[in-house]
Amino acid sequence: MQALLDGRYWKLREQVRGVIARPEFEPPVGIPMQEYRRRVLEWAKTLAAEGLTAPGFPVEFGGQGDPGANVAAFEALAFGDLSLLVKFGVQFGLWGGAVHQLGTRRHHERYLRAIAALELPGAFAMTETGHGSNVQHLETTATYDPKAQEFVIHTPVEQARKDYIGNAARDGRMAVVFAQLMVADESHGVHALIVPLRDESGNVCDGVRIEDDGVKAGLNGVDNGLIWFDNVRVPRDALLNRYGDVSQEGAYSSPIDNANKRFFTMLGTLVQGRVCVSGASISAAKLALAIAIRYGLRRRQFGPPDGEEVEILQYRTHQRRLMPLMAKTYALHFAQAELLEKFHSAFSDDEPPDRERRELEALAAAMKATTSWHVLHTIQTCRECCGGAGYMAVNRFAALRADTDIFTTFEGDNTVLMLLAARGLLTDFSESFGGMNPAEMVTFVAGQVVENVVERLFARKIAQVIVDAVPTRDESTNLLDRDYQLDLFQWREGHMVASVANRFRRGLNEGFDAFEVFRAVQDHAVNAARAHMDRVTLEAFVAAIDQCEDESLRDALNLVCDLYSLWNVECDKGFFQEHGRLAAPRCKQITREVNRLSNEVREQAAPLVDAFGIPDEVLRAPIGLRHPR
Amino acid sequence: MQALLDGRYWKLREQVRGVIARPEFEPPVGIPMQEYRRRVLEWAKTLAAEGLTAPGFPVEFGGQGDPGANVAAFEALAFGDLSLLVKFGVQFGLWGGAVHQLGTRRHHERYLRAIAALELPGAFAMTETGHGSNVQHLETTATYDPKAQEFVIHTPVEQARKDYIGNAARDGRMAVVFAQLMVADESHGVHALIVPLRDESGNVCDGVRIEDDGVKAGLNGVDNGLIWFDNVRVPRDALLNRYGDVSQEGAYSSPIDNANKRFFTMLGTLVQGRVCVSGASISAAKLALAIAIRYGLRRRQFGPPDGEEVEILQYRTHQRRLMPLMAKTYALHFAQAELLEKFHSAFSDDEPPDRERRELEALAAAMKATTSWHVLHTIQTCRECCGGAGYMAVNRFAALRADTDIFTTFEGDNTVLMLLAARGLLTDFSESFGGMNPAEMVTFVAGQVVENVVERLFARKIAQVIVDAVPTRDESTNLLDRDYQLDLFQWREGHMVASVANRFRRGLNEGFDAFEVFRAVQDHAVNAARAHMDRVTLEAFVAAIDQCEDESLRDALNLVCDLYSLWNVECDKGFFQEHGRLAAPRCKQITREVNRLSNEVREQAAPLVDAFGIPDEVLRAPIGLRHPR
Repeated sequence: MQALLDGRYWKLREQVRGVIARPEFEPPVGIPMQEYRRRVLEWAKTLAAEGLTAPGFPVEFGGQGDPGANVAAFEALAFGDLSLLVKFGVQFGLWGGAVHQLGTRRHHERYLRAIAALELPGAFAMTETGHGSNVQHLETTATYDPKAQEFVIHTPVEQARKDYIGNAARDGRMAVVFAQLMVADESHGVHALIVPLRDESGNVCDGVRIEDDGVKAGLNGVDNGLIWFDNVRVPRDALLNRYGDVSQEGAYSSPIDNANKRFFTMLGTLVQGRVCVSGASISAAKLALAIAIRYGLRRRQFGPPDGEEVEILQYRTHQRRLMPLMAKTYALHFAQAELLEKFHSAFSDDEPPDRERRELEALAAAMKATTSWHVLHTIQTCRECCGGAGYMAVNRFAALRADTDIFTTFEGDNTVLMLLAARGLLTDFSESFGGMNPAEMVTFVAGQVVENVVERLFARKIAQVIVDAVPTRDESTNLLDRDYQLDLFQWREGHMVASVANRFRRGLNEGFDAFEVFRAVQDHAVNAARAHMDRVTLEAFVAAIDQCEDESLRDALNLVCDLYSLWNVECDKGFFQEHGRLAAPRCKQITREVNRLSNEVREQAAPLVDAFGIPDEVLRAPIGLRHPR
Repeated sequence: MQALLDGRYWKLREQVRGVIARPEFEPPVGIPMQEYRRRVLEWAKTLAAEGLTAPGFPVEFGGQGDPGANVAAFEALAFGDLSLLVKFGVQFGLWGGAVHQLGTRRHHERYLRAIAALELPGAFAMTETGHGSNVQHLETTATYDPKAQEFVIHTPVEQARKDYIGNAARDGRMAVVFAQLMVADESHGVHALIVPLRDESGNVCDGVRIEDDGVKAGLNGVDNGLIWFDNVRVPRDALLNRYGDVSQEGAYSSPIDNANKRFFTMLGTLVQGRVCVSGASISAAKLALAIAIRYGLRRRQFGPPDGEEVEILQYRTHQRRLMPLMAKTYALHFAQAELLEKFHSAFSDDEPPDRERRELEALAAAMKATTSWHVLHTIQTCRECCGGAGYMAVNRFAALRADTDIFTTFEGDNTVLMLLAARGLLTDFSESFGGMNPAEMVTFVAGQVVENVVERLFARKIAQVIVDAVPTRDESTNLLDRDYQLDLFQWREGHMVASVANRFRRGLNEGFDAFEVFRAVQDHAVNAARAHMDRVTLEAFVAAIDQCEDESLRDALNLVCDLYSLWNVECDKGFFQEHGRLAAPRCKQITREVNRLSNEVREQAAPLVDAFGIPDEVLRAPIGLRHPR
């Protein structure tokens, strides 16, 4: 099973696990922040020395031209210290990725090798105190001075200071700074420029002010900080000019005419961050589950009168808490494997079709939100399932929980990302969307796509709806029918998407402006995105089972998949009943089946968590070792 | 509103807030563990000097004979550093409380004054590595040696070491040790004895071994540790002998003949811990909500095209995340106020009726579980609603979250507590229960109580069920009818309790043993306890509104109460439909109403969080101040 989960990058994953299994890579507990930061930097240098840092960079600049390998390495690294993971992501993914994706050959030649070798630590200075989600409204300015042929980088108001920037407080020598590009008093929207932060001795440059963000809830091995710019000058070629350039004379040009589309294209190239966070979330969930499930299989408490105490995973309440979360983790694993391949494919191509990129972005947004919420809930449940032992730092939940917390809001706030994914569903990412104003967009959506969606997803379902409404004798066979489960997921998504679109249309018809209508349907839109993600996840799981050639593995996966899909439906039984899709007896039957399946999966729980492929040397938590010392 | 929330202990609460508002009481961030522990001890000494530490002790021993004041002080203290709170709870509540409740006059005279003054720091050594929830199966022994007239305290196996014991690692001079009492080779079950841990210079006593539990997920200002006893001898009068004593000659005697009943009576006297944790959870939720809601009312992000950005609490998704949690916090506040009074009343009486005590215990168990889960969910949501700023330690969510995490499993694992509360519901705490074996208990339950419950709660509901199934024109008036809401809550509880009891009976009739049946119905039992708690909470809220004489406050509370009750029903719409109580149109209507109410409550959100009564000097989070600097 582990081979199946590790997939085509198994060797790379093995290599990363080998490094973080070394004694010196043990996640530290309770050490002072500055010492932690030093240690993390040393670890990152070791990874660079092992050649693990930038497989996605072009071969000529020290990489392997293999975008998917970036993600796989990140996923494996997430079994170790998560400050190292995030430092790695900041340096090689965000800073390196921005230079790679937004820069052109001159920037690649100048910086990529030094970045991959960690000779040039850098920061990704996008977020400001005043603007996080609404990147388009950043206030930092980059004003072109044609006389000097320089850009002037400036923080015009206090809220425009860059904030929460990794590598800023201590190690960063340069930063890619996102700022409003001003050329001859005309704004061209947000662009990225390379700005030095410190000289080679580590002294902060003139005009730059940096403060330490100080102690955070977690990730205290990463040096996040605040940056202010006071009319800092950088040469013209500091502009990362793949999507927008300024000539010596001060003429702005871009391969993408529409400013809105240009902005979203630039942001879209940075999708790797979300793909990586999604993968890391799943890894952290695996780690937590491996610990809590092994503990639950060994720990005994209470029992029949005068009998031996029983393993706590024998209790239904305990099974109910852990088994569905393991099943969902398996499901998300396969969805992530598909996302990785889509990412790899889009970024292996110099100019992938717009539609492919947009689908990738919507999927990455929804996956990142789904997995980062999932991992928090999973770690918390696992911690509680280990009682006081789970609260001890040595058993790893403490740092796992505190470090992954920020996954829900960095690389995009989860709720905003779900709304973004919902927008994707509504517009079907039509080519024409980029240039539309919201009102046009809505007309477009309500006029065309919705009818199609409704038609595509509602047709040929009526028979099944009737079957569900009238309980039959042979009910349980039916519940385990995979097509039936898929049908439920697809039907829900279709219904929710159509419902949001209709509400949108109705709101506009009633004379509200688009922004008002958008606010009013937000909760439905998030639900639609969730239903979409659930459907995509189940389909990925099913596809993986179909491809599996080993019969015993397939049986095990089918069992886990049944639990995932029926538990998902059970959680949403309010919706399914409200919309006439499931009758009450059917719902009760599903609850019974989830109980039965939780117990069956529990019987295979040990090999199922072993397959996550986390060696004891990496897992380290005394209560969760596969082979207790 | 604040006066209404502060209630009759307002002056004491004011006094505690005054102390923790002092600059030196600022919760520290990122300081080394040992320094943190020192600081917490100093703080606790200041509280002792201010006379705030033991209002529940008898007047003659330095207290005020006011049990409720203990809880009120604890609740107010929870707005400050939570390591201090837990240290306070360990010293004055657990250690002091055990001496007070399980000891007799000689112990009170000897220890209570010194405990209240913090001259005698002590530990509450109940939990062992091998046994947490199942206290009855602790393995530490206290064997009476009639020749020496001493008890021998011993750790017979490694798993019997005491674990996670607060005050053990650093400060504790004595401990109340829970051990199996062995007299002349006969076991009398778990009893508590006072055992010295360290001498006055802080040296660990002979035969005692102590280790530090080390770094925890939170509460690192509390010195939790492990304790082993190697045949440690203590005098005969070290036994806390209120419920069981041993004569010089080695004759065991107890005012309670039944060993099982004796055990649960002893444990029951320690209910204060759960009452306090419940109150502290609600305080921590208030603190988190005050910060996130004020942030949401000020922070602007996105907006209509070419318009100003709008406050993020204008967004439905944001309202939906925070407003129901505030409403539930208000609801739980009133439930807690009732719990406090019940606790006060039971403990003001020397020998309260058994029934009153048992009801108190069941309520405290369910409340502690409900509030501690609620606070974790609330803090997490609030943190996410503040984005990156919420992740910075200075804004308090980090420590709040990490420190309250353990609330879900200490003072009883939440799931186990919910099962305990469910047992209470089933047996109606009949006097006869104590001595019954599980099979008898079930017969008793199924034979008598269930019929009554069903009858009491199901009668006179049929008309309403029909109304719900057929949507009427005047729907919204009906939804806001308080009796209608109460009816839904009561109906759900009755249905769930009856269902559990019936499953129990059916399982036994089918020949399964009681333990098996118990395992199989656990999930239903937890649901029943949850429904019970929800009903109790709503009734407490309604009673508080009825007693409120100020019309504008009553209007505000009614609005919040509507949101609480309809959101609660919405979350459970799967159940209500499954059991034919709500029809689909009714459910959709409830969702619309929750949306509307969330927006209305948002309009009053600022005064509603101000009423939590957390002065800026105590709140401290820069993003959440009432009057930003």
